[in-house]
Amino acid sequence: MSKTNSGNFFEDFRLGQEIRHATPRTVTEGDVALYTALYGSRFAFTSSAEFARSLGLAQAPVDDLAAFHVVFGKTVPDVSLNAVANLGYAGGRFGVPVMAGDTLTTNSVVIGLKENSNRQTGVVYVRSTGTNQTGEMVVDYVRWVMVRKRDAAAAIAEEKVPDLPGSVAAADLVVPAGLHAARYDAVLAGSPHLWDDYAAGERIDHVDGTTIEEAEHMMATRLWQNTAKVHFNQHTEGQGRFGRRLIYGGHIISIARALSFNGLGNAFKIAAINGGRHVNPTFAGDTIYAWSEVLEKLEIPGRGDIGALRLRLVALKNQPAGAFTLKTPEGKDDPAVVLDFDYTVLMPRRA
Amino acid sequence: MSKTNSGNFFEDFRLGQEIRHATPRTVTEGDVALYTALYGSRFAFTSSAEFARSLGLAQAPVDDLAAFHVVFGKTVPDVSLNAVANLGYAGGRFGVPVMAGDTLTTNSVVIGLKENSNRQTGVVYVRSTGTNQTGEMVVDYVRWVMVRKRDAAAAIAEEKVPDLPGSVAAADLVVPAGLHAARYDAVLAGSPHLWDDYAAGERIDHVDGTTIEEAEHMMATRLWQNTAKVHFNQHTEGQGRFGRRLIYGGHIISIARALSFNGLGNAFKIAAINGGRHVNPTFAGDTIYAWSEVLEKLEIPGRGDIGALRLRLVALKNQPAGAFTLKTPEGKDDPAVVLDFDYTVLMPRRA
Amino acid sequence: MSKTNSGNFFEDFRLGQEIRHATPRTVTEGDVALYTALYGSRFAFTSSAEFARSLGLAQAPVDDLAAFHVVFGKTVPDVSLNAVANLGYAGGRFGVPVMAGDTLTTNSVVIGLKENSNRQTGVVYVRSTGTNQTGEMVVDYVRWVMVRKRDAAAAIAEEKVPDLPGSVAAADLVVPAGLHAARYDAVLAGSPHLWDDYAAGERIDHVDGTTIEEAEHMMATRLWQNTAKVHFNQHTEGQGRFGRRLIYGGHIISIARALSFNGLGNAFKIAAINGGRHVNPTFAGDTIYAWSEVLEKLEIPGRGDIGALRLRLVALKNQPAGAFTLKTPEGKDDPAVVLDFDYTVLMPRRA
Repeated sequence: MSKTNSGNFFEDFRLGQEIRHATPRTVTEGDVALYTALYGSRFAFTSSAEFARSLGLAQAPVDDLAAFHVVFGKTVPDVSLNAVANLGYAGGRFGVPVMAGDTLTTNSVVIGLKENSNRQTGVVYVRSTGTNQTGEMVVDYVRWVMVRKRDAAAAIAEEKVPDLPGSVAAADLVVPAGLHAARYDAVLAGSPHLWDDYAAGERIDHVDGTTIEEAEHMMATRLWQNTAKVHFNQHTEGQGRFGRRLIYGGHIISIARALSFNGLGNAFKIAAINGGRHVNPTFAGDTIYAWSEVLEKLEIPGRGDIGALRLRLVALKNQPAGAFTLKTPEGKDDPAVVLDFDYTVLMPRRA
Repeated sequence: MSKTNSGNFFEDFRLGQEIRHATPRTVTEGDVALYTALYGSRFAFTSSAEFARSLGLAQAPVDDLAAFHVVFGKTVPDVSLNAVANLGYAGGRFGVPVMAGDTLTTNSVVIGLKENSNRQTGVVYVRSTGTNQTGEMVVDYVRWVMVRKRDAAAAIAEEKVPDLPGSVAAADLVVPAGLHAARYDAVLAGSPHLWDDYAAGERIDHVDGTTIEEAEHMMATRLWQNTAKVHFNQHTEGQGRFGRRLIYGGHIISIARALSFNGLGNAFKIAAINGGRHVNPTFAGDTIYAWSEVLEKLEIPGRGDIGALRLRLVALKNQPAGAFTLKTPEGKDDPAVVLDFDYTVLMPRRA
Repeated sequence: MSKTNSGNFFEDFRLGQEIRHATPRTVTEGDVALYTALYGSRFAFTSSAEFARSLGLAQAPVDDLAAFHVVFGKTVPDVSLNAVANLGYAGGRFGVPVMAGDTLTTNSVVIGLKENSNRQTGVVYVRSTGTNQTGEMVVDYVRWVMVRKRDAAAAIAEEKVPDLPGSVAAADLVVPAGLHAARYDAVLAGSPHLWDDYAAGERIDHVDGTTIEEAEHMMATRLWQNTAKVHFNQHTEGQGRFGRRLIYGGHIISIARALSFNGLGNAFKIAAINGGRHVNPTFAGDTIYAWSEVLEKLEIPGRGDIGALRLRLVALKNQPAGAFTLKTPEGKDDPAVVLDFDYTVLMPRRA
């Protein structure tokens, strides 16, 4: 038996299968510093322990996306080592905030399987749950990926396409225990615009652009212990479809989220990932721009101090976002669009 | 009203205006590790908690320049987002050392305004003060920048060119509380040369050179949450004046300071920034060399264990520093000079 | 007297000479995060405080190679600043695990000197010992380097080629105090293969490949405060023998060790470095692959829960490792081989 892991192929998955993923990971202040160095995030809630304390937390939480990337990274060796494409996300919910010192593990359940008609590949749907050392949920989400079959002739026992939620309901959003916005200092936070100031349908050009380097996306992806080969090996990727290393889609989510500070500076916490699609691949040398649309304003039951915004975050490559590019006139994905992400943030309300 | 910050233009500033800058920042051991990875600093005082304890501190302080960069970074969105050039520094003083865990904020006062004769731009002078979570000053300095006007026709209410100190006096240098050099171990520190061994007028070639990569300067600049667009966006900078991303001047200061260890290994702490000028721009691929000149030897009132050296630190690009290049025969800045920095360090004296 | 350190030349060393190296270094969680970002290591023992606790430790130790690099880095300014080549390692033993917060220092003894017949260079053998702040040994090893003479005519007082151990005996391996494998969770660790499942002579292709970037190897090498000029200065190296910056050999050891997780996932701790050679130089842009051979299975006296494997770890550049490339048909080093490393790991045994 070979001692190296060649990953699961489509026919290796079973509906209802539970997977305990390897490599528990203690998240530290070192990860927080690297997150800042890689993305330049400026949300005061994660940047400053004092600011987080002023909102009722004991310390500054780790960026929600850093927690997501750690939890996601663990699933790769079991779920997507033989993936052709990462197709989408749905029903993602952030639970208790991750603090430096917490140890995260991930478990997944296979909730859907659908072979493609060519029998070369199939789509695997997994619900993955990240938990901290006391067993509390930190993030829970569904993703689906197209995975190669080892043997096109292999039969698939049971197939099912799961019902996926359109978005996470306001009542299901988790507000961290003890959090209150009574002493929220918008000057320190860097934006005067609170929940009340945003309107459904409003679109925001985040203006700035960030060029990606190979060293950066590889350091990020290794930090999350994500082992997908396409990100790291120029020797093989140079001979592949794109001739280049492909960038981990999560890197683009984090870049776009950091860019979105300029216009959404008080969107201090991500509460849900409603959906998301990596529309086109990105490569080192690409410059990422971003724009947002307010999809929905959500009141949070029982809370007058904070509300939620459901946002569409669109990232573009090598094209400023002022034209709010999304689709071609023919209704196809515009080739400049690299990310179409639907998520929900918490934001203070005016007293 | 647009939700994105387009920064202040020259006519937006007022003499005496106070600015509370956004994004408080808790500095951690993660930042310290990144500082080492980016610059390779070898001063034992900041490298080793045990060494710092042997000098009377509770733990190793964060590098003074890291503190400076954090404090500086906060001013960018308010002061220099529309800057044409960062013209100079003066009257900089380091206060209480920054320790991992401290949270820094920055406030500025506009102390000078001078419109240029073309009316397209003007010079803004700000005194910026970084403080920790208990309100203690960690660094305080003046910088002046040339900032674009939004509207050339806009009138400027009141102008003033402030008096700037030539250098910080010895009596104004802050020696950290409890610091003593009685047990200073020069072997562990890596240099046998103490304060007594340096002479005014002495010049030191720091010998080594460091080549800059795009990923490094962008990670550094994001770590300090410095948002100046020219450092990050190849898509626009490629069409700009230089065709390339410009490197944050502070990155060069930190590289030159780290190079200066070889010759100034016992200059364990920066006490003052007397002045400084980014003489020419730098770009990825440039190799930085440095030389120093001892401008002045300063006794510190009441201290027999440590003295101060006022130093000129000159950084060159793509040219070794053995010729102590500074000016052309015509008295202009030599094109290889990228930094001319006047600062004051603390150094142990012989018992 | 010049204030810059130009390093020792061959004739400056004396048999029995003791060197206290400069720059004590407190290792932190920041270094741990950078190690993960640079190498993507997935050994659960160093990744997770909870996992380390389940094996009886108080917290997750710092990666053994990170400790090695820190200890090694300190020796460079004294031992190898004028080195032509780093020839080999022997007799390396890891002592007490390094924990975040520990401060490391290095002392060396010159145990061998042998002038080359051309009288331009000689080989220096040093035993270097890294200790923590309480004086406990953390790693102890011999390396030998070819060092230039300042003056070919200089006489060498006493020469000696030391006897070097072939490998570290099982009885000399240090098992961390309190460590037990009774609760070792192989699923969380990411590999079902325990000590019992490996056989002497077995070879493992680690499959994956990693492409090296300039920013990465320079950040790593600076993190270890390794000052060897060839790694950092493109301005001079561009005119040198290779036309490029040379990569620190230890960077390749860490890459190869991280790749070896895929096939040796339960080799949770390095106990010894028996020998090692940097066979060919590596440069940015190279893609590193690795394979291992089990040289020996060692029982550890008095331990039924863990055993040791003596492994050969071979790294290749720009060539997959499935052919287990090592020598040419003529018995010379294959030009693709960059590292031939002989080390001993601890691994849990089946109950």
